[in-house]
Amino acid sequence: MKLDDRGLLVVISGPSGVGKGTVRSALFNMTGHDLVYSVSMTTRAPREGEVDGVDYYFVTREEFEQRIRENKFLEYAEFVGNYYGTPLDKVEEQLALGKEVVLEIEVQGALQVREKMKDALFIFIAPPSIEDLYQRLINRGTEPIETINERIAKAKREIKLAYLYDYIVVNDDVDNAADKILAIIRATHAKTERTIHNYNKLMGVKDNGL
Amino acid sequence: MKLDDRGLLVVISGPSGVGKGTVRSALFNMTGHDLVYSVSMTTRAPREGEVDGVDYYFVTREEFEQRIRENKFLEYAEFVGNYYGTPLDKVEEQLALGKEVVLEIEVQGALQVREKMKDALFIFIAPPSIEDLYQRLINRGTEPIETINERIAKAKREIKLAYLYDYIVVNDDVDNAADKILAIIRATHAKTERTIHNYNKLMGVKDNGL
Repeated sequence: MKLDDRGLLVVISGPSGVGKGTVRSALFNMTGHDLVYSVSMTTRAPREGEVDGVDYYFVTREEFEQRIRENKFLEYAEFVGNYYGTPLDKVEEQLALGKEVVLEIEVQGALQVREKMKDALFIFIAPPSIEDLYQRLINRGTEPIETINERIAKAKREIKLAYLYDYIVVNDDVDNAADKILAIIRATHAKTERTIHNYNKLMGVKDNGL
Repeated sequence: MKLDDRGLLVVISGPSGVGKGTVRSALFNMTGHDLVYSVSMTTRAPREGEVDGVDYYFVTREEFEQRIRENKFLEYAEFVGNYYGTPLDKVEEQLALGKEVVLEIEVQGALQVREKMKDALFIFIAPPSIEDLYQRLINRGTEPIETINERIAKAKREIKLAYLYDYIVVNDDVDNAADKILAIIRATHAKTERTIHNYNKLMGVKDNGL
């Protein structure tokens, strides 16, 4: 029986190179859970084959800036001349339907979300060590050493912000990390603050305990 | 990787007839988890085959009362002329070894524990409905209807105290309830407040974030 009928916004974040994307994929591959991706909104042009509302919500610069003024983003940023953001209303729609909305974002974005969505779940994906993170970036083989060193310097700053999250999950094994996230989601739905209202209703108890 | 090396005191509680014992057994039957029972201390005489330190810690009335004065019980109560209690030092020993100590107790006892052990996990096992609880007590077939009615009246009072617990788990299916408790235990070990110290040590960050 599910006493908590509202979905959870699950924010998966951590330094770049930690394997957030891989952990998220492993999480989605686990069956029996009503997880959905949060679809981002962007001002960049759709690429061949990209579908509006599936890959992104494609909007004009004017529409995007209007939404910024109306405080309609959970977080947003500008990269290389284009805006990217997480639309608050779309996320709310999914949560109301009881779906868990998974948001995989950088640390700076996560801190923006924290301010707007108090009951979201903030999970920091940590590397087993700084050396491990360095090795992962080297192994990718896609970037020059200067870029890797910059990423590591940034990662070290982000690693210090883990204390701002609700949970810390070390990505020493992808399946184990995904499994732990699932346990955190299940546990959160059983929290008294999220269940007491429907529980009281079921038991015929008033919310003031009388 | 386990960032939290201290075990958890898991308090499983709820109204009588809700199936706490069955849920606890199902929990212990799940493999791969370092769960231990909390062994109670009592002043009653050992029965045939009962082993000191396994079934109970058997002590004299004087010893027990001395321990009460020394505040050495997590909770205790007197039934039919004998004391029964949960010895604090024995629980602490197990927690320090990284073991999860499971305590299955009545609501009144749980509230005593709450005061003494702030970082314990308090899980309220709820019936799917009052009718269901009534039916379970009837099905046991061991008690006269007057006793059952008294139990139901007591259960109704206890059901109103669920809001004092950290989590509410409905026992509509024993395996599902046990599985949820396991998820809660795993999630609690990943909580930032329990992991940040060892995480910072691993990352070479000081606890003040510098």
